Amino acid sequence: MMIQSVVVFSFLFVAAYASVQDFCVADLSLPDTPSGFPCKDAKKLSVADFVYSGLGAAGNTTNLIKAAVTPAFTAQFPGVNGLGISIARLDLAVGGVIPFHTHPGGSELLVVIQGTICAGFISSANTVYFKTLNKGDIMLFPQGLLHFQINSGKGPALAFVSFSSPSPGLQITDFALFANNLPTELVVATTFLDAATVKKLKGVLGGSG
Amino acid sequence: MMIQSVVVFSFLFVAAYASVQDFCVADLSLPDTPSGFPCKDAKKLSVADFVYSGLGAAGNTTNLIKAAVTPAFTAQFPGVNGLGISIARLDLAVGGVIPFHTHPGGSELLVVIQGTICAGFISSANTVYFKTLNKGDIMLFPQGLLHFQINSGKGPALAFVSFSSPSPGLQITDFALFANNLPTELVVATTFLDAATVKKLKGVLGGSG
Amino acid sequence: MMIQSVVVFSFLFVAAYASVQDFCVADLSLPDTPSGFPCKDAKKLSVADFVYSGLGAAGNTTNLIKAAVTPAFTAQFPGVNGLGISIARLDLAVGGVIPFHTHPGGSELLVVIQGTICAGFISSANTVYFKTLNKGDIMLFPQGLLHFQINSGKGPALAFVSFSSPSPGLQITDFALFANNLPTELVVATTFLDAATVKKLKGVLGGSG
Amino acid sequence: MMIQSVVVFSFLFVAAYASVQDFCVADLSLPDTPSGFPCKDAKKLSVADFVYSGLGAAGNTTNLIKAAVTPAFTAQFPGVNGLGISIARLDLAVGGVIPFHTHPGGSELLVVIQGTICAGFISSANTVYFKTLNKGDIMLFPQGLLHFQINSGKGPALAFVSFSSPSPGLQITDFALFANNLPTELVVATTFLDAATVKKLKGVLGGSG
Amino acid sequence: MMIQSVVVFSFLFVAAYASVQDFCVADLSLPDTPSGFPCKDAKKLSVADFVYSGLGAAGNTTNLIKAAVTPAFTAQFPGVNGLGISIARLDLAVGGVIPFHTHPGGSELLVVIQGTICAGFISSANTVYFKTLNKGDIMLFPQGLLHFQINSGKGPALAFVSFSSPSPGLQITDFALFANNLPTELVVATTFLDAATVKKLKGVLGGSG
Amino acid sequence: MMIQSVVVFSFLFVAAYASVQDFCVADLSLPDTPSGFPCKDAKKLSVADFVYSGLGAAGNTTNLIKAAVTPAFTAQFPGVNGLGISIARLDLAVGGVIPFHTHPGGSELLVVIQGTICAGFISSANTVYFKTLNKGDIMLFPQGLLHFQINSGKGPALAFVSFSSPSPGLQITDFALFANNLPTELVVATTFLDAATVKKLKGVLGGSG
Repeated sequence: MMIQSVVVFSFLFVAAYASVQDFCVADLSLPDTPSGFPCKDAKKLSVADFVYSGLGAAGNTTNLIKAAVTPAFTAQFPGVNGLGISIARLDLAVGGVIPFHTHPGGSELLVVIQGTICAGFISSANTVYFKTLNKGDIMLFPQGLLHFQINSGKGPALAFVSFSSPSPGLQITDFALFANNLPTELVVATTFLDAATVKKLKGVLGGSG
Repeated sequence: MMIQSVVVFSFLFVAAYASVQDFCVADLSLPDTPSGFPCKDAKKLSVADFVYSGLGAAGNTTNLIKAAVTPAFTAQFPGVNGLGISIARLDLAVGGVIPFHTHPGGSELLVVIQGTICAGFISSANTVYFKTLNKGDIMLFPQGLLHFQINSGKGPALAFVSFSSPSPGLQITDFALFANNLPTELVVATTFLDAATVKKLKGVLGGSG
Repeated sequence: MMIQSVVVFSFLFVAAYASVQDFCVADLSLPDTPSGFPCKDAKKLSVADFVYSGLGAAGNTTNLIKAAVTPAFTAQFPGVNGLGISIARLDLAVGGVIPFHTHPGGSELLVVIQGTICAGFISSANTVYFKTLNKGDIMLFPQGLLHFQINSGKGPALAFVSFSSPSPGLQITDFALFANNLPTELVVATTFLDAATVKKLKGVLGGSG
Repeated sequence: MMIQSVVVFSFLFVAAYASVQDFCVADLSLPDTPSGFPCKDAKKLSVADFVYSGLGAAGNTTNLIKAAVTPAFTAQFPGVNGLGISIARLDLAVGGVIPFHTHPGGSELLVVIQGTICAGFISSANTVYFKTLNKGDIMLFPQGLLHFQINSGKGPALAFVSFSSPSPGLQITDFALFANNLPTELVVATTFLDAATVKKLKGVLGGSG
Repeated sequence: MMIQSVVVFSFLFVAAYASVQDFCVADLSLPDTPSGFPCKDAKKLSVADFVYSGLGAAGNTTNLIKAAVTPAFTAQFPGVNGLGISIARLDLAVGGVIPFHTHPGGSELLVVIQGTICAGFISSANTVYFKTLNKGDIMLFPQGLLHFQINSGKGPALAFVSFSSPSPGLQITDFALFANNLPTELVVATTFLDAATVKKLKGVLGGSG
Repeated sequence: MMIQSVVVFSFLFVAAYASVQDFCVADLSLPDTPSGFPCKDAKKLSVADFVYSGLGAAGNTTNLIKAAVTPAFTAQFPGVNGLGISIARLDLAVGGVIPFHTHPGGSELLVVIQGTICAGFISSANTVYFKTLNKGDIMLFPQGLLHFQINSGKGPALAFVSFSSPSPGLQITDFALFANNLPTELVVATTFLDAATVKKLKGVLGGSG
């Protein structure tokens, strides 16, 4: 009787199995869809598909902004595909800054692990919300709004930032405006900057035109 | 140092790129999914994928209803795929009518560009909402509800109708009932029309059975 | 003029057709996505894709739990793909029990067709909600919460259970804990059971380790 | 030590409790929102909020269509609020018909409990899908599409219909067109019916104008 | 018998009515929710709740940017609440510019009604997409991405812009950065601008600090 | 001219303001809705509504499980309301265990800050996925699936766990089964445990019946 019951249960599980979408680990070799990438075959998955060690080491902060963002989005960690969540590691050397940027596709929740970070965002109503955060503090940056993070302490700072999307996107305003070939005259016309400032920033950030 | 920073930023952008789903221009050669079509390779897109000129000319209104609907849904304008929006152009000659119809998959927002349009919809509670609209007026037609538009002026009318879905669908009631091979006896049984009326309308609208 | 109008209408329908996603019958031969399986070509569908007869016969209840669940989820009935709904048949012989389980992906609505069923669920607040249901009664089991059904009558019981997802999933707690190779020491550590009980249940339910 | 642990756990549950939205039984005395009604206080709920007996008895089919729909939507069964599912009972006397109608807000899944039902729907592409269903058969009617059900057997028929929304809505085409005060001239203009037919149907179905 | 049927149908409609959420016209006097404002009582609505004439007249373009945006979002047109769509009118005098901005909550679809508009957006991958649009052309601006519109013709330009949200939000980058009290040192630190430029722009745009 | 432009812009911002839903900080004094709590008046918010310091200190792990979960869900941190994200702090003393549990309303993403954690989950297909995680490792626990965390190191462990919902819920299986008044006979019937074991666990965990 026990064997029988196991057989019946097994049938039940087999029947239900193919229709279950507990998770959908991205097959990055296939084209994306509006809801995310197609799923890898569940039978070929192991725990390695759900664990990622790429955030364990500090990012390289030897750069202009003295900061590094190390993402675990779908492209780096295919397990988050379809689950509505992702995470990134934020390293800020002394004086490090993440310049004003937005995430078009998700809200952000930052937790300070080490150091002191001055962070802020600006609402559609043009109101500024900013504060100095210490170890253990968390702060929200609602979807699509301009925000920044600055290491305001005397040592390096470390934070983890979670997102309400597996692919929140990242648009750094200065790079969007100055690090491509958008013609200077269009940048001038659509900001309140003069041509000299635009050309200088294009030079600094690698843009042309 | 500047070169270094550009390199680090480039790395950041490259790393983030594959996981960003800013948009998902439909690859109509692949099968659709419940969330829309798979995306074209973002690296192969140009501004032409986000611009459409097919609504620039009036539709042909030399027909029974003296009206034309020119859609820019996913099938015509693959850029809207996954973005939750689409649009169509509505041309109504003098006396033109868009007969009662529904959009199963989205709400509609009409703006009158030229002429005078009498438009209305009927709620689930069987209440009628209709009004004569002039140039610049906008009107809502909530998802799935029966509605109509009539040119109630003395010259041609033009409107643009936006939808809350890239593929809102379109079901014109008369065509659904009379322009196919649904047996007359079933139409009679499921409407309050008599067989003669049903057969006549099938004749007018191209149905059989 | 009639012919002309039919032509114009046909054009309209053809133009709109490819972009319409009235439904998306699953093509189970392609990889799943977070929103469900890719769609079969709509032109190749017939009414058979929207009708399923697999719930017409009672499931085999000659097993340990004297019960059977016969699902019509996406895997069995591809028509539900993308439509946010599915159904299953529940047969409970005298003394039959569906042990504590959850559906990770959807809420459940049960309707009793025959017999008497004692059913209940437990909320996140640890509150128990249970009741004896008779023919025609309906009961809700909100998404993800532990629940059970017991035949509390003197004859066989039959119910249909609908779900708010085409693939709600099914996790029977005892099978999740005891019917696989999760090491006994981990089961002991993460429940309040002793090793002897765990090993005994692993034996009953087909687990190892 | 055991007491201590219970205290700590209780704290955990209390802390988590207020933020948990396992369910949201509608408080129909408050205004609705786009996501459904505000929730009753979870502490005041009992199992009675999750069970409904209103579908246990047959609806009255002594009427023009020899049919009755008995819904368990949010208005009748507030427990479904926010859960993405609802159900209704369908009674069809001999010769009974549910005329062409749509549910603007959800897909429908029908299961035949007794008798024989001929049911069908029409897609946006104007294609007809219909079939005769027997006991135990299930059939889908995708969101927003015109559909009907006819008792095609020699005895009464009973079905339960589940919906992918707690408030799917119901728009019976004939009642939308003829059972209100929409002026006859507008109905004539927006259907292909003549005024005499429209006035006759307004008479039958209780409309005016 | 006819009277009887009307009574039965009326009962059906009454029963279904309260649970139907065909639409949810915002009651702006009540607090907003994540899904939008609570609904006005459906019984008190008229067609006026679904029609808006506020976009019929040109906005005042006698200002620094020689442009005006006239929105019909939930705040101006409560009918769009919960329907996933809204619209605005865009007037651009000769030389008029809508500076770089984002809509955090929705994608935008622009249709040119009059004149010539150069419009563009920048992706998360830092790629520029821009084009000169003529009458009848439509262009997409995906959710949350920086974009601009410039009157590039010799006469005034008019466009309507639809959104995939009833409240898409609007964040003009220059105003977010310079038209409030965000301290100059923080603006300097989080952009690549120098303090003199920041202070000058704060002066132009009304900011302080 | 500058003053004029500021005035016009101010009008634009004022007009747009009320309809913008950048965020929706919960007003916990009002009833919840299916989409979350009604919003506090945006004009009365400050940065304090978006920052929370309650996760800065270790939870008290002097209890039976030698572990503590400190949540920042909507109830503790109203700023997350409507944003699709939340977070909690996980403290595990030496030998600490978070017993098998589920989150009915969201997926979880864990990042190890200190120590060594053995964590695992079980799929609907009854497959076990578990691994020992070190500092900096992240692991996913998909929505609604049973999972656990054990301190498998020699010192205390600390992790932060993010969720794809502002109110993911928490159902600890042992407490759901044994820490309430669900009658022993029902627990016996719906698990494979004997009455003695059930009664013993009820005693340990504070249940009755």
